[in-house]
Formats: sequence, structure tokens, C-alpha cells
Amino acid sequence: MSLCSFCNDYAEGAHPRLLEVLTSSNMAQEDGYGNDSLSAQARDLLRRELHAPEADIHFVSGGTQANLIVMASLLRPFESVIAADSGHINVHETGAIEATGHKVHGLKSRDGKLFAKDIHDLVMHHGDEHMVKPRVVFISNATEVGTVYTKAELESIAAICCQDGLYLYMDGARLGSALVSDASDLSLAELSRLMDVFYVGGTKNGALLGEAIVINRKELQPYFRYHIKQRGGLLAKGRVIGSQFVGLFTDGLYFEIARHANTMAMKMAQGLKDLGFIFFTPVQTNQIFPVFSNARIRELQKSYIFQIWEAVDADHSAIRLVTSWATREEMVDAFLEDVQKSAGK
Amino acid sequence: MSLCSFCNDYAEGAHPRLLEVLTSSNMAQEDGYGNDSLSAQARDLLRRELHAPEADIHFVSGGTQANLIVMASLLRPFESVIAADSGHINVHETGAIEATGHKVHGLKSRDGKLFAKDIHDLVMHHGDEHMVKPRVVFISNATEVGTVYTKAELESIAAICCQDGLYLYMDGARLGSALVSDASDLSLAELSRLMDVFYVGGTKNGALLGEAIVINRKELQPYFRYHIKQRGGLLAKGRVIGSQFVGLFTDGLYFEIARHANTMAMKMAQGLKDLGFIFFTPVQTNQIFPVFSNARIRELQKSYIFQIWEAVDADHSAIRLVTSWATREEMVDAFLEDVQKSAGK
Amino acid sequence: MSLCSFCNDYAEGAHPRLLEVLTSSNMAQEDGYGNDSLSAQARDLLRRELHAPEADIHFVSGGTQANLIVMASLLRPFESVIAADSGHINVHETGAIEATGHKVHGLKSRDGKLFAKDIHDLVMHHGDEHMVKPRVVFISNATEVGTVYTKAELESIAAICCQDGLYLYMDGARLGSALVSDASDLSLAELSRLMDVFYVGGTKNGALLGEAIVINRKELQPYFRYHIKQRGGLLAKGRVIGSQFVGLFTDGLYFEIARHANTMAMKMAQGLKDLGFIFFTPVQTNQIFPVFSNARIRELQKSYIFQIWEAVDADHSAIRLVTSWATREEMVDAFLEDVQKSAGK
Amino acid sequence: MSLCSFCNDYAEGAHPRLLEVLTSSNMAQEDGYGNDSLSAQARDLLRRELHAPEADIHFVSGGTQANLIVMASLLRPFESVIAADSGHINVHETGAIEATGHKVHGLKSRDGKLFAKDIHDLVMHHGDEHMVKPRVVFISNATEVGTVYTKAELESIAAICCQDGLYLYMDGARLGSALVSDASDLSLAELSRLMDVFYVGGTKNGALLGEAIVINRKELQPYFRYHIKQRGGLLAKGRVIGSQFVGLFTDGLYFEIARHANTMAMKMAQGLKDLGFIFFTPVQTNQIFPVFSNARIRELQKSYIFQIWEAVDADHSAIRLVTSWATREEMVDAFLEDVQKSAGK
Repeated sequence: MSLCSFCNDYAEGAHPRLLEVLTSSNMAQEDGYGNDSLSAQARDLLRRELHAPEADIHFVSGGTQANLIVMASLLRPFESVIAADSGHINVHETGAIEATGHKVHGLKSRDGKLFAKDIHDLVMHHGDEHMVKPRVVFISNATEVGTVYTKAELESIAAICCQDGLYLYMDGARLGSALVSDASDLSLAELSRLMDVFYVGGTKNGALLGEAIVINRKELQPYFRYHIKQRGGLLAKGRVIGSQFVGLFTDGLYFEIARHANTMAMKMAQGLKDLGFIFFTPVQTNQIFPVFSNARIRELQKSYIFQIWEAVDADHSAIRLVTSWATREEMVDAFLEDVQKSAGK
Repeated sequence: MSLCSFCNDYAEGAHPRLLEVLTSSNMAQEDGYGNDSLSAQARDLLRRELHAPEADIHFVSGGTQANLIVMASLLRPFESVIAADSGHINVHETGAIEATGHKVHGLKSRDGKLFAKDIHDLVMHHGDEHMVKPRVVFISNATEVGTVYTKAELESIAAICCQDGLYLYMDGARLGSALVSDASDLSLAELSRLMDVFYVGGTKNGALLGEAIVINRKELQPYFRYHIKQRGGLLAKGRVIGSQFVGLFTDGLYFEIARHANTMAMKMAQGLKDLGFIFFTPVQTNQIFPVFSNARIRELQKSYIFQIWEAVDADHSAIRLVTSWATREEMVDAFLEDVQKSAGK
Repeated sequence: MSLCSFCNDYAEGAHPRLLEVLTSSNMAQEDGYGNDSLSAQARDLLRRELHAPEADIHFVSGGTQANLIVMASLLRPFESVIAADSGHINVHETGAIEATGHKVHGLKSRDGKLFAKDIHDLVMHHGDEHMVKPRVVFISNATEVGTVYTKAELESIAAICCQDGLYLYMDGARLGSALVSDASDLSLAELSRLMDVFYVGGTKNGALLGEAIVINRKELQPYFRYHIKQRGGLLAKGRVIGSQFVGLFTDGLYFEIARHANTMAMKMAQGLKDLGFIFFTPVQTNQIFPVFSNARIRELQKSYIFQIWEAVDADHSAIRLVTSWATREEMVDAFLEDVQKSAGK
Repeated sequence: MSLCSFCNDYAEGAHPRLLEVLTSSNMAQEDGYGNDSLSAQARDLLRRELHAPEADIHFVSGGTQANLIVMASLLRPFESVIAADSGHINVHETGAIEATGHKVHGLKSRDGKLFAKDIHDLVMHHGDEHMVKPRVVFISNATEVGTVYTKAELESIAAICCQDGLYLYMDGARLGSALVSDASDLSLAELSRLMDVFYVGGTKNGALLGEAIVINRKELQPYFRYHIKQRGGLLAKGRVIGSQFVGLFTDGLYFEIARHANTMAMKMAQGLKDLGFIFFTPVQTNQIFPVFSNARIRELQKSYIFQIWEAVDADHSAIRLVTSWATREEMVDAFLEDVQKSAGK
């Protein structure tokens, strides 16, 4: 019997409607390297959604690729990027940013989030040529621990960036899930206005692959394709990613997918709360982190795949449960039932 | 009316049988980052085809990505790579190798090929710590100008690499087309035995995307996934590429596709030869380079998309015509007819 | 009237005996790039002092240069270096290590020192290809805050490095001062045996310029000169640095200089303790960090140059006072007197 | 008996007047890292000599260091530098520029020189994001083979740089020798006006060490010290280099040294011409390249050190003879005599 996975939001392939766009357009001859009509259409759809007719939009295959290409394009050799200590670029990208030559500051964070004051303090401590010059603030939304930035938090970070001469960049691997969260109070277009550069994540929101990098700030737009090509990110058949974003931004599918993932996560969280479990971080998006006894975890691992996040005490650990467009309600019900069965653990 | 493209071998999407593998496996839950069952199966199929049960095989999304990741993994900081002056890494990858810190020697080539003696001479000129230390020989097969290495040529290059302490690496973006060429006299397995590392190209041989990096030499295998991740090449849904190689190496589809592309190119070349045209480089694979008058080129551009390769004299230029799995015989016939019609040009 | 500087240990030029070696050998014709007889002699003197006849020794012009060249030579692209959060490479080298492509982990430290357990824990948290692989431990002795590692501390770090597959590297910018400290309980030769690579600092111990990189571990020795050259560290007139180390390791001058600097620092520290002042970190070498009121600091700045290290509370700060071979006893006496005069502040 | 060296212009230490500045200023307390009064004075002297009161001037320890720091500061990641195929950065700096991430184009040269038309053609061949974007032209004056650019040549290169959006940079390791050559027709100030950035070489013109980087173009000046520090080029005792340039640009010593070196080379060249020898490249500065039989070369190697440059035919080779401030007339006379004695070879 195969195990049921709540391990991540990329265990299945693509949402069927995205596969459909891909296959139905398969035989048309198209230009290569992102100059195809599908990518063009996807860029138009996104610009409309963002209310940003002058935004530059580029598609790349994954999040690490997006992050490293953007950082390489934004930073001069002596400049650095500020991220949460738990941030993806600081921990889980195998030094990809450093491999392009730049320091990542792992700044103290709370619930995976950065705060304006801490950013400003760090900048103030960097005053001369013996130290790097912080130049970009990197945030993830949703964060690595499933939390969401509020409009007020983003505005205050954007304000300090403006004041201190920093670019603001958002890793949007799970941006859909963040935006449709009850904890979020701004639209994609409103969020876009606060960012110099960010990416709209496809892979973890139903696409076969692909992330859409959005460059709002004019002076950062020229030559960006050179950076993509140099880092190996320019797909010969760019249509593959283009087709995914055409599908995602047709008839609101992007948000529909995110909403389904969040709904499944909330149902699971509510069920666990009803059973008396506590959570490691606030439950806001499609990643939730309940705290279980290690004995219960071992029991559940017989039927489910999930990640053990962090030990909480000698006998308990937080685990990570992730839902997606492909999570069916009966999977959640079965899991809750199995949690109950594992009582006494 | 839309133009017919002979511009490249990635104008269409994927071969239908590859799409079929992708879509039929779409809903299964799989591990991420290349640890899925499709990638595992594809690796097995390839190892069998290569008669190389101990080869390490990794899938990445494109050729530039494959090249830069392999070079970054093979070279210490002061080491360099020898390529043809016309080689892809020397000309058409936006300095991707240099961006990982390494010099590319653009060595004089003939018909896009390197020769053992020239390699040895270059190595002999690099003797102390004021110069880089050449460490890898980079060849493409088929080459950038559609030619194919013979077994004897490859053996003599492999021998000089062994003697001079160089690794031998082959860019196989169009390896299928090379192997089924009449100019080739060795099998994929025989070729593999001569290489330390090489890649089997998918994108230009019918796949949606994907190249299979094969690491034969034991000491180069450890930690390779770290390099892939660091350079942004590890796809969360690795199944996407895995599925393509499952399809390509089931029932010999890889060679069937390459054979069709070559057959179409040979038919076109024969037709042009019959009309008295000469070629810029030997006709051996799915890229052919006839020489036309510039007036004729302008005429043909009204109906066809192709690349103007290089001026031959004031009035004539070589153009590049590329065929693929998707090239239909009637496209070739129509082209030949239109060339005839453009007489007097 | 010019101010008296306790700002650092490189305010004056070279110790007269080092200038003498330089000038007396000036007219001899020598080979370039460190192949001169002075550098050869210096290497011999050092190897004897280290009881390490097989050590490889190279001279470079400064500490940042030494650190970045060694790290570039030790690390593969996906590997990282562990340093104290206060470590020079983590804070004060403008991202020099990251510019060679490698992550620096800023690990929690106490009194500027790393401890074996913390190193081991960090290594244990890095388990797969999504994270960098820690490979080098970087320590400074004396540390950035003037403290010294004991033999027991170094042995336990060396043991964990051995167990966890890490290289151990020591930045010895102020190694002389560390070794002659009362807090030190091992000789230069004993210390050398515990290190894979380290450097013996010249610049801050009386030399015009120059640091001696010592590579003890055999497999790290080949090709090191390529790294030096590539990073711009190979001086055409290598004799300049060679002469400094000939002088430093003739008749024990290296230790004589360090002893004088420490003696002056201890005298100053004792004077301040007698006046009731406390210190920010243990007083062990030629850098001491008394805590003064900000008013007193402003008063003293009228006559002295020194660095304000860190605010201790709203009204008090630690300052850094540094002594050297050139510090005269009357400078210390005058300073202590001026501190007394500034009473009430 | 020790051999007499014509191997290079850095076999001796420093010109006595430069040593004098160094030693006489030794005991003054100075700020570190190039903020000392000697460096300030040297910058003033140079700005006056250059008639460039707004030029930014920085001192580093050697030529490779100067080149790599400047290139790292001028180039964005996808940009490249055009150099002569024989250029120092292309051949003899161990891939230092590539190690900062940038491609070096080795452009066909004549007598070590680049020409405007070839530069323009190369730029024209680089048109899209699949190729690097050439951004800097790197020339050496005097060149690697001892030749000198004329004013007309430099003006035409500067004009093409302006037209094609390239920065013009000159490696002035032997700039003194170039400027006082009979083949030169412009002053240091006139030359400076044509350059965006260049360096005035000290090491090969009598200094203990040191090169003065001059940044004329305003927008390239900010943050340059960050680059120096990051690449390990900021000496703690910057006074060491500052003192050399104070000496070099006091009472015209820089040109006096260069003139002596050239005079010695011309005397040697005239003597060899009188004996019927031919030269591999035009004789213009302190490096000359006579062609000798290999038998004669072996004979001369018993008494002299020099570099064998290149085989001319099976029996003859060009050798490189270099003179300097320290070359005495009797050394030249003795050499010419020994060449005569080696007749029949």
C-alpha cells in the first residue's frame, strides 16, 4: 500500500487545466527562448492582473533559479542581501546566492518574518568599505513557516527600504496561498506596487514548473534576459512555462488553486485544534505545523509522508503538513481519523 | 499566413508519445527533486542503453545549465576548459562558464571539431602558475555546424586527454542526430565509454525539456546534486524531465526521432545539391548550411523562418536549415519547390 | 599638536631591524614572484621554528588576502566555512569569502571564540544537497576581542574537525601576541601541529607588510601558487615580504616584538584596573577593551586616537586600545595620567 | 659566480630614493588602509602631473591585482572585456578576470596592439542575450612585446570606445618606459585624458611595490575602495606604497628611471643591430626581443638570465632582454661582448 503524502505541494504533476493548455498548443511552431506567443499571452494576463502595464515579466523554471538570477542582477560585487535567518536563500539553496558572489545576512526573524526596525539597525551597522553594503531585502510570502505578511508590515518594510536605499524583493513561491489567506489584507496588484521585484510562484501552486519574475522598477529592467541566459535559466521551449501561466491566470485559476489548498489546510488545522493539539507557528496558509508526540509521529509515519520540522522538547516535535490543489477532502478526513486512533501516543 | 520554420529543432512542443508519458503519470504522488519513480526509471533505461550500470545520471532543464553545472563541478578555481572557437560555451552561453569563475580557451577548429594535436599543443603552452591549467576538453556532437565526430577522432581525443590529465566532456544537445548519422561509426554505448562526462540531449530531440547528464568517472560522482541545486537546476517536480526520458528510451524513440530529423535534412540537402547548391559545411545531421544568394534568401524569408549563418562573399550567405521530429515531408518538398521558384535570384 | 594613537598596531612603519634586512639586501638581483633567496631563507627559518620541515609556506601581503586565497583553495563550490559571528571574514572583509563563491556561517561565539560543541551542532544541521556543506572552521588567535585560545580549547576543536571532516584554519594576524600571552599554554610549533592551514601575521607584529601562510596538510599543498596568482597576491618583488620574515624569525624578534606589545597593554590594563575601570573582554593580549563613560571618551579623544568598540549602556562604551612594538612606556604613562585627569567624567 | 639577469625589470629592490622616503617616514604614526599622509601626498602629486584634479587615485600592490579589481568594478555579470590575444589578462594572470566572473576576448593583435576596427567588428558580432556584452577595452602600454601606442592609435581606440559604449582601460605596468620612448608622442597628462581608467605602474619602474589606479570617469569613482578591500588589496600600512609614489613623482624620478631603462635597452639593441641581429618586434622600450640561434642562446645562458620568448624557426628563437633603473652600462657592454664571443653559434 502506498503512503499518502502531505510532504509538500509538489507531489503531483500539474493541475489538469494547465496540462490542457500545454497539450492543446503542442504542435504550433513557436519562437524559442521565451519569445513564443504563449509566454507573451501569459505576460499580458499577468500585467493585467497586476495593474502594471509597464512591468517586465520573465519566466524561469524554479524558485532557487529565480532568486539567484534576480540577486545577481541587482547587486554589485560588494553588495549584500538581507534575509530572515530562516529564509530559503539563507538555508535551503546550497549557497546559491553566495555562489554568485554575495553575502546573505541571516537576520533574526519572528514567525519567519522580517521587521522594518531590524532591517534598519543592520543597515546602520554597515558604514564603511571594510564591510559589505546591504542593498536588497529578501522576504518570502507566505514565509517558510506558513505565515503571511500584512499590508501594514509590508508598507513599513517598503518604507525603510526606500529610506535606506534598499531594493525590496519577494520570493512568491507560495504567494497564491498567502494572498487568499484570511491573514492577508491586500490584493496581488496592491502587493505588486510595494515590490521592486518579486516572483509569482507556479510550481507550488499547480503548475508543472515555472515562476514568473516581475520587475516593476524601470532601471532594473534592461539586460535581464542576459542574466537569465548566463545562469542557465532560458528554456529553449519557453512555451512550456508560458502555457502554465496562461492557464493559471485564465478565469482566476491561480487563486482557485490557492484557495483549495488553504481550505484543506484550515480543515485539517481545525480538526487538530479540536483534538487539542497546538501549533508551532500561526496557521495561515497551506503549510501547518502541529506539535505531536514523537511516538504519535512514528505511528503516523506508517501511513503518511510528512516532514519533521523541529524538536519542541525531548518527547515532542513540530511536523509540517502541506496541502495543495490535489489534496482531496477524504485525505484530510482520513488523516484526522488516524491521528485520533493514534491516541495514547 | 504563418511562416514555416526551419529555424531550429525546438519550434514545436514535445513528441506526442512523450506528452503521453507526462500526462498519464500526472496524478501519482511522487517524491520531489528528481527522487521520483519516473526519473528513477529513466535512469535505469539510460544505464541499460549505455551498458553503464555504474554511471551516475542527473536530469536538468537545458544545455547551458548542464554545461555550467558540469564545469563548475569538474574544475578547481585555477583550471580552464578547452572548447572549439565556435563552441557553444565559448560563444552562445553569455559567459556562463566564466560566471562560474573559469576561463574557456577558444581553440581553432575545423568544421566545428577539435583535434587531438591542437589540444596537446595548447596544454604544452601552459606550464606554470602564471597561466591557468587546462583541465577539461569540451566537444559538441553533433557540432555547432552539424558535423559528427568519428570513432577514430574521438579515440584520439580521449587518448590525449588521458595522457595530458584532462577530463573529456561532450555536449550532446544533438547527440541523437549525431549517432544515427551516416558519418557516425559508433553506438551510444561505445561513445559513452570514451567520455568522462557527457549529456544526452532531450530538448532538441523531441522532449518538452531536459538533458540527461551522465557521469561515468567514479571520482566525479559524489556531491553532484549539490552543484545542481546551487545553480538552480534541481526541479521540484523532477518527474517532468524524468517522464521525457522514460518516453525517449522506451522502444527506441530517441533514435527514431533523430532518424526522422536526419532523413528530412538529407532529403532537403539532396534536393538542393540536385539544384546545384553548395554547402558551407559537410551535410551530416539535422542542421544543414546551404549557400544561397542574398537575393534568394530575401525571397525565401517571405515564406520561411531560418537563420542566416554567415556571409560567404558580398552576394552570398550560408543559411542554417534545421529539421526535427516534427518536420513533415511536405514541408521539405514545398521548400525545395520554393527554392526552385526563386531562380534567377 | 598631533594626537597619540592607540588605534591599532599598524600606525607606524616597520621595526628598524626589518627595515635593515630590506635595505641591506636591496641591490642583489633576485628571482621574482617569491622565488628569491630571501623568501627561501624565511621559509627555512619558519619551518625550523614550526618543527615542520614539510610544511608549505607562502607569503602574501595582508590578512584578507591570505584568508580569501586559502578559502578559495580549500573549498569546492558547495562548501562553506564556519566562523565566529564576530569573525573578521564574517564582518570586516567586505564579503571577500562570498566573492569567491562561499557561504560563511556566523556562529555564536563567546569572547570571540568558537567552541567544539557549537561547531558539531552546526555540522549536524547540514544534511543534504539543499544546504551547503560546512568544510572549514575559521578561528582567529588572538581573537577580534583580544582573547586567546587555550591548548585544551584548540585540541577539542581540532578533534571535532577531524571527526566531522572539517579543515581547521587559523587567522594569525595577531598570533605573536597570542602566543606570548600569559593566557596561552602552547608554543608556535605545538599550535602548528593542530592546524591544517594557518597564517603567521607580520603586518600587525612589526613588519612593513606580509603574512606567512603555512600549509601543513599534504593534500592541500599542490597548486597553491596558482591560487595566489589568480587572486592578485603574487608580488613581483616577493623579496619585500621575504625580508620581513627573515628579520622576524632571526634571533626571536617575532616574539620580542609581541612581548613588548603585550607588556605595554598589560601595564595599561593594570593602571586602568587600579583606577577602578572594568573591561569588556578578558585582558590577554595587545588589544584591551576598557569601559569608559562617554563623557570621558570625548575628553580623551582630544589627545588620543582609539576606536569606540561598542555601547555598553546609555552612558558608557567599551573602547579598543591597541599597543605594538612601537608603543613607548611614556605613552602609556601619559595616557593613564590623562585618564585620571578626566575624573568626574 | 652569479649570473647577470636581463630577465625582467624587477630583479633588484627599490630605487634608493624611494627607499629613502620609506625609511625616513617610518616612525610617524599614520592612519591605516591608504588614509595616511604619504598616500594623500602621492595622490596630490599624481593629480598635478596628470592635470586631473578630480581624478580618483588608489594604490594597490601589483598589476594583476589592479586589473582584476578594476574589471570587477567596471563590469556587470554579463559583460566582458576585450584584450589583445597576447594581453596579460588573457594569458598571464591565471584566469584572474574570469575568476571574478567575466569573459576575456583574446582579440587578434599586431605587435601586441589592438586596433579600433577590430574592436568595433567584435562588438558588432555581439548582438543579443545569448552572447556576452563587450564593455571594456583593455590595452597595455608599453605592450607585452615592448611596443608603444601612438597618440593617433589611442585616439582612434578612444573614439570607437565612445561610439560603441565601451570603457577604455590601460594597464600601465610599463607606462613610464612607454611615455619616454621615441615612439611615443604624448605626455602622461594627454594620455590620461583619453582613458576612463588606467594604472601608473610602480613595481617595474623602480618601486618596491605598487601601482596607482587612476579613475577619471566620475560615475566609476564611488565605492571603489569596497572593491579593493573585497579583493584583498587594501594594505593596512598603505604608507608603504604611498611612499613609493611620493618618491616617484618628486623631481621627475618616475621619468628619469624610465629614461635610464630605455637608454640601456637602446644601447643594447643598437649593439645587436650593428652585429647584424634582427628583432622579433619593433625596439621601442625597455623590453627588446632579438633573434638568436639556439646554440648561441645556450652559450649565453651560462652567464646571463633571460627569457626565451618564442621559437622563430627550428634553429632560432626570440629572447626577451629587459633593462631597468638598476641596469649598469657595463652590464650592457659585457653582454654585447659576450654575444660577439659566441660567434659561430
